Amino acid sequence: MTYFEIDKKELLKGLGLMQGIAGRKTTLPILSHIFMEWKKNSLFLTGTDLETGVQEELNATVHEEGKASVSSKKLYEIVRELQDEVIHIQKRENHWIHLKSGKSVFNLAGLDPDEYPSLPAWQQTPFSTVPTRVMKEMIEKTAFAASNEESRYHLNGILFIAHKIGGKEFLRMVATDGHRLSLIDREGQVIPGIEKGVIVPKKGVIEIKRIMGDKDEEEEMEISFDNTHAFFKMGKSLMVVRLIEGEFPEYEQVIPKNNDKKVNIKKETLHRSLRRVSTMASERAEGIKLSLKKNIMELSSFHHDFGDAKEEVDIHYDGPSIEIGFNARYLIEALQSFDDDGILMELRDDGNPGILRSETTSTPSHQLSIIMPMKI
Amino acid sequence: MTYFEIDKKELLKGLGLMQGIAGRKTTLPILSHIFMEWKKNSLFLTGTDLETGVQEELNATVHEEGKASVSSKKLYEIVRELQDEVIHIQKRENHWIHLKSGKSVFNLAGLDPDEYPSLPAWQQTPFSTVPTRVMKEMIEKTAFAASNEESRYHLNGILFIAHKIGGKEFLRMVATDGHRLSLIDREGQVIPGIEKGVIVPKKGVIEIKRIMGDKDEEEEMEISFDNTHAFFKMGKSLMVVRLIEGEFPEYEQVIPKNNDKKVNIKKETLHRSLRRVSTMASERAEGIKLSLKKNIMELSSFHHDFGDAKEEVDIHYDGPSIEIGFNARYLIEALQSFDDDGILMELRDDGNPGILRSETTSTPSHQLSIIMPMKI
Repeated sequence: MTYFEIDKKELLKGLGLMQGIAGRKTTLPILSHIFMEWKKNSLFLTGTDLETGVQEELNATVHEEGKASVSSKKLYEIVRELQDEVIHIQKRENHWIHLKSGKSVFNLAGLDPDEYPSLPAWQQTPFSTVPTRVMKEMIEKTAFAASNEESRYHLNGILFIAHKIGGKEFLRMVATDGHRLSLIDREGQVIPGIEKGVIVPKKGVIEIKRIMGDKDEEEEMEISFDNTHAFFKMGKSLMVVRLIEGEFPEYEQVIPKNNDKKVNIKKETLHRSLRRVSTMASERAEGIKLSLKKNIMELSSFHHDFGDAKEEVDIHYDGPSIEIGFNARYLIEALQSFDDDGILMELRDDGNPGILRSETTSTPSHQLSIIMPMKI
Repeated sequence: MTYFEIDKKELLKGLGLMQGIAGRKTTLPILSHIFMEWKKNSLFLTGTDLETGVQEELNATVHEEGKASVSSKKLYEIVRELQDEVIHIQKRENHWIHLKSGKSVFNLAGLDPDEYPSLPAWQQTPFSTVPTRVMKEMIEKTAFAASNEESRYHLNGILFIAHKIGGKEFLRMVATDGHRLSLIDREGQVIPGIEKGVIVPKKGVIEIKRIMGDKDEEEEMEISFDNTHAFFKMGKSLMVVRLIEGEFPEYEQVIPKNNDKKVNIKKETLHRSLRRVSTMASERAEGIKLSLKKNIMELSSFHHDFGDAKEEVDIHYDGPSIEIGFNARYLIEALQSFDDDGILMELRDDGNPGILRSETTSTPSHQLSIIMPMKI
């Protein structure tokens, strides 16, 4: 009988990484399973929802090679409750596995591991190395602006695209839900295969960020794209995400060119005011009104049932008085995506989108956020 | 115009205590409100769902007495976002209130405070003093066994009853859902009015325990009962709970007298084994089988889809071999309610309830847990 031994902590770590993917609500029973393959000195765990796949290599003592497919959630529940000991796993008849640890014995029903969908293999495209920190930051600064509406499938992802400014090469990420847009450039991150742009689904990107969070000892990751998939390698993890087919909006046309009203604001001050004033915004539209006059921004909101709120914030502004309405949550999320406290808000009038940028323009990380106005 | 000033932290603390009660799902709009009355140097906040009521006295600077009724949740949301500053609250026309703090201004719609349901007043019954710690412990050791099924209304509470053993007086609490029962006695806690027993709803009791948790500086509380309500005073808080009408089951008849199989077990060891083996119990019945022979208990479970589990636990047992099935969660919850690690399990056969007690019988806190057996 083929079997292996593995440390409880090692197996638990690997199973933990799978829980976000394997076992999501699914009509295909085997997708609630993980695929396990033990060979040489490793156990390979694979989980997939057919859109996002994760493979993890773990240290194990393999006595005879083998493979199995068992419930991801159930195996995780069991291993989590075991004491810190060695776990012995043996393949049995009819795809069952037999698990023994200390005085505990489990027999776990399985499915034919040969029926488990294999992860797409990458082509000849070479992998590019990117600092994990940079990838994590770029995802954080864009993913929030992507759409969650399933009907807007082509907006459910982040555009990864190569970008050149003045002979310098940048990796650019853009996300938009049609009401707002976030864009960030990072210099020197050259990844072949994305010259025309690829759309990586938000769900997959969030999963990758989650796995990054669990592996903060990995300073670098490797990335590769082919026509249909994105591949991410980090330490002993491999993640594969199916790209979204379809056209990403012509985002460069959306960026306003004539926003001549420049407002300098402190991020934290505005953020706190927005949180207070938005308590009186309606739950659905979440609209608040910004009224600007020389060096003062008044925020106000009105709720049909509960009442109204207003507050003044000190700003630097020298232009004409204007009023403009925004979704408060979009403003808050956009503000939070900036690291610097000094924010430049560029407006034109109450019918055109506003832009948020960092006051400091000399950073290598060019970043902006665009928010559509709303009638209040 | 009548108004007062209050410290942000003070108001936030009071509003926090109300959130569990006021604003629960309700058909009567004013029950989503809190009642505020400011007089002398205090703001009195009141929240009620007509079953459980809480009144809290807060320090305030009152300029002219007044009262109001506003949304509990909305006021809490607003105050939570304010900076740590003084809050000015003024009564306006049509029951609105005007709230000002720093540069923030809110107008909050209200309802006529005279329509707010007043809390029941207590009769002449005197209050008895009980250590908060004792009350909290007795609630924790019983409430979990009360029923959550609304159709079993008379089992939705905890019986508070005066009890005498050998001339000594005890406060006894009992809860049961028909499948299990928990009972605890504490010596010397004499409370008039519960000689025949009163049933305090679990929801109200849990709310009181929550408020106790927020006020751990209060070492003593005062308790009083009349025919329809229980009154709890703690520091500047008053809680009123409407008693459940109806007969509590004849619980003393449920306590088995002939459980001759005595098993000594370690609480923590059994608890961990139960958690492991119950991963393979069915989600609905949660049943596991205990098989006892000399000094060994084998726990086993079987799940129709996932497989089976078993584990041996060392015990002290010198009786004949027996097998008995229990709901694993009931066993776990009962075990957790004991402080001591040494537990005495008393069994008769697979058709009769089991009893859990502390091995140490000399404690002043007599406590037992009864669990019905199940066919596995």
